[in-house]
Amino acid sequence: MNRVEILAVGNELLAGDITDTNFLALARVLKDKGAVVTRHVTLPDDRAVIADGVRDALARADLVLVTGGLGPTEDDLTRFGVADGLGRPLVRDAGAVETIRARFRRYGVGDMPVANLVQADFPEGARLLDNPNGTAAGFLVETAPRQAVVVLPGPPRELLPMIDRHLLPYLEARGGLPVIAARRLRAIGLGESLLAERIAGWDEGLADVAIGYYPQDPGVDVKLTATGADEAAAEAALDAATRRRRDRIGEHVYFVEANGHDRTPLASVVGAELRDRGDTLAVAESCTGGLVASMITAVAGSSDYFRGGVVAYANAVKTAFVDVPEALLAAHGAVSEEVAAALADGARRHFGTTWAIGVTGVAGPGGGTEEKPVGLVWMAVAGPDGTRTHRTQHAGDRTTIQRRASATALDLLRRRLR
Amino acid sequence: MNRVEILAVGNELLAGDITDTNFLALARVLKDKGAVVTRHVTLPDDRAVIADGVRDALARADLVLVTGGLGPTEDDLTRFGVADGLGRPLVRDAGAVETIRARFRRYGVGDMPVANLVQADFPEGARLLDNPNGTAAGFLVETAPRQAVVVLPGPPRELLPMIDRHLLPYLEARGGLPVIAARRLRAIGLGESLLAERIAGWDEGLADVAIGYYPQDPGVDVKLTATGADEAAAEAALDAATRRRRDRIGEHVYFVEANGHDRTPLASVVGAELRDRGDTLAVAESCTGGLVASMITAVAGSSDYFRGGVVAYANAVKTAFVDVPEALLAAHGAVSEEVAAALADGARRHFGTTWAIGVTGVAGPGGGTEEKPVGLVWMAVAGPDGTRTHRTQHAGDRTTIQRRASATALDLLRRRLR
Repeated sequence: MNRVEILAVGNELLAGDITDTNFLALARVLKDKGAVVTRHVTLPDDRAVIADGVRDALARADLVLVTGGLGPTEDDLTRFGVADGLGRPLVRDAGAVETIRARFRRYGVGDMPVANLVQADFPEGARLLDNPNGTAAGFLVETAPRQAVVVLPGPPRELLPMIDRHLLPYLEARGGLPVIAARRLRAIGLGESLLAERIAGWDEGLADVAIGYYPQDPGVDVKLTATGADEAAAEAALDAATRRRRDRIGEHVYFVEANGHDRTPLASVVGAELRDRGDTLAVAESCTGGLVASMITAVAGSSDYFRGGVVAYANAVKTAFVDVPEALLAAHGAVSEEVAAALADGARRHFGTTWAIGVTGVAGPGGGTEEKPVGLVWMAVAGPDGTRTHRTQHAGDRTTIQRRASATALDLLRRRLR
Repeated sequence: MNRVEILAVGNELLAGDITDTNFLALARVLKDKGAVVTRHVTLPDDRAVIADGVRDALARADLVLVTGGLGPTEDDLTRFGVADGLGRPLVRDAGAVETIRARFRRYGVGDMPVANLVQADFPEGARLLDNPNGTAAGFLVETAPRQAVVVLPGPPRELLPMIDRHLLPYLEARGGLPVIAARRLRAIGLGESLLAERIAGWDEGLADVAIGYYPQDPGVDVKLTATGADEAAAEAALDAATRRRRDRIGEHVYFVEANGHDRTPLASVVGAELRDRGDTLAVAESCTGGLVASMITAVAGSSDYFRGGVVAYANAVKTAFVDVPEALLAAHGAVSEEVAAALADGARRHFGTTWAIGVTGVAGPGGGTEEKPVGLVWMAVAGPDGTRTHRTQHAGDRTTIQRRASATALDLLRRRLR
């Protein structure tokens, strides 16, 4: 089980209308498990072509992973093509019919349309892989003692959870793979090349640990990987390597993952710290328009520490909701250090929280001036020990600037809490 | 010259360490010129595998486009593999040697390293495609009267300019290409299978228009594609097909794109309508935690109509900032029709806007009860003609529920504005 071919099915992929983001996630998981992706093929929604593709791949690979085209509409032909490629008939699974029917009932959207029945058809002998996030179950067919075809639905929010749920356990059950251990240092506030520069020259004596840099926008992940037959030795080498890197990168590291694939969000790290302290948080944001609050509340359990926020988009709202003085706005402009501080102070006072974040800036594409260009963002954190401000200049389009500024504001609070 | 297969070469691509951004650019240019990408294959840096890949592709396609692996180092094996696949020897081109040598001289980096000599070797009979941004020239080999292999270097800053310089003129010189036109109907509020059911049976007399369904989470896009020799005829067929589909899908369609690849966000559609009317908007959101405001403010120019919002996460905030009566919260609970309406009313009054959205629900994973399960979201739109509420039950994890509820709330306003 070493050679893997990935077949992505979809006219829309071939037309360049969407990007196959599943591939990256699959490639990384497979690599972590010691498997090598030897070919990645994108095929059209064409039954005969899919069948040929599956046959070709089975002639070369130990595992053939097929993604996409499991939907209920007539352009979803993957199950038919795979069945043809395997030379097996499709058989309706009564349990799967019931699962789909129950799903429609549960979400109160009425009876199951007849079109969905096809999603209960699988090649004879297939093992079903349940999909908690959609009606399209995946399936696995063992074609030889150490060879299989695994078929997964295309939408990333359905496919990605099925990697951990089905693909990883299957790879692990096959066994016989070399141990690959990994750590992921999540860093923010330093670009990729500056980060690499800090670490450079620290690789001596760690020849068995590979290092990779992965820009995350915002932030950069540094991934350390050790390979070997002995798990304890690999983990020990990694611990030493991680410690050294972390010392060099310093406070830019906001989290260290004990594996290669988890990605704990910055807002979770900040939230855990607030919960531990019994502290509370509020925000008043202008140019980020609700994104800081949205990042915070995307974390389960955030109601333990997050009280609320104001999206103070219009100047009058800044004054009415969090008491930013009109005179201050007139004197310094909405995008200024003073207004950022006033937003944070006002939010802290009005929401009655331990901490508050204020953000104001020019998200663009319009509204920039020579003095206050697009991408300029002032932020502030108000707390029991006073209010501190921070000026940043972000690059990118509007949503990139909003995303980076929001992450930087959360990071400002993280550093303050340390 | 209609069927194109693209072969991308590189171990780094298969490992998921880098993404093949060239593909999207190539796919769009080819589509614009009436060519159809029928397969996209990523191959490892392996001479025999590349040779096989070229042979397989030539058995099916009119144009085989190979990218990457033309560098000077020993892992760059594309020229060897392509030559093998074509059954032609490599021949050194004296002019190319001179070009590379001159490049080293011009950029003052000393004499040309011996390693670079290989970049002057091309399959016998190839036409060279010069590369203004690197030492790796591309090449084109005509393998039959209307069949060719085109090989381009992998780095995007070298490849992308070569599309306009070499690929486009070649495609245009071939001529006689069919026109491909497309429309994209963006719909929300109906699942993929229900949407397909509505449209089913409406394909008569439109055999030249292909239809595809693409879940967007939230929403579903329906893409209509017409192919023909005559642009006006293809566009007319599409217009007729689009009209019929739109009539069937009804108000669920929030936008019709005049091409296949643009994706105007729902918040842009709502924003344009508000701007046209000279109306303003505010939000008060609980379970979506700032995401509704964030979607609205991700649109450039949203400050024209969006005044601001309150993220009323804690109950006390709902009362203090938008006057949701404590008695109402006590009587019906925070997740209720009454509180959704009070949030919208309070926001409209406090922000002084034409319209306001209120959202409250159970985003999960905790906090669900039998009566109010995870995924239950109440929303309301308050406007000059009163306040209307809407109950939804969303599936998925926390962030999916937040995303779907936010989109549904925006859609509620869109329908109200019609």
